[in-house]
Amino acid sequence: MENQNLFHAIPSALPEELVQRLTGNGRVRIERIVSRGQASPEGFWYDQEQDEFVLLAQGEAELELQDPVERIRLVPGDWLVIPAHRKHRVAWTSARQDSIWLAVFY
Amino acid sequence: MENQNLFHAIPSALPEELVQRLTGNGRVRIERIVSRGQASPEGFWYDQEQDEFVLLAQGEAELELQDPVERIRLVPGDWLVIPAHRKHRVAWTSARQDSIWLAVFY
Repeated sequence: MENQNLFHAIPSALPEELVQRLTGNGRVRIERIVSRGQASPEGFWYDQEQDEFVLLAQGEAELELQDPVERIRLVPGDWLVIPAHRKHRVAWTSARQDSIWLAVFY
Repeated sequence: MENQNLFHAIPSALPEELVQRLTGNGRVRIERIVSRGQASPEGFWYDQEQDEFVLLAQGEAELELQDPVERIRLVPGDWLVIPAHRKHRVAWTSARQDSIWLAVFY
């Protein structure tokens, strides 16, 4: 069994956010997301069927959430749970280094 | 909504491995595990009902697995999936720094 590394195998060009399914089953999905300065489009909100646990493993980012409105700054190690259907978007990610997220949808 | 940090709020004394449930539901459990030189007892093997995704976020550790026998060295960012019922144990963790794991049982 080979282990893999969350910080490795990042493409040198990253015109869009990179979303990769690491593992999961019919009910659970674990993803790595790599952002290089990208943010969600203005006015776009994620509205998900499942709860999401999200950990910022590297980089720096800001999330924006609705109901209630919140803006959360994240540094490495920060994690939160976004309940299903709580609208949210990535407001900002650092352009100076890659932001690497681990997301579990469950 | 408060975010929390995987690397914070670690007790100064850690006579045993620290296992904390971060979130989950009836089917999924997400835990933080902190090891300070601890390993599984000699001859003890985890034999779990669920698949486990495990990420070493900080530190240095070695896992031992059966069927087939493997010994896997982990550095920060390394992750693997341990299928349900594949017997495994923590063979070693660094005593020089805390090893911080994120585990998802699903």
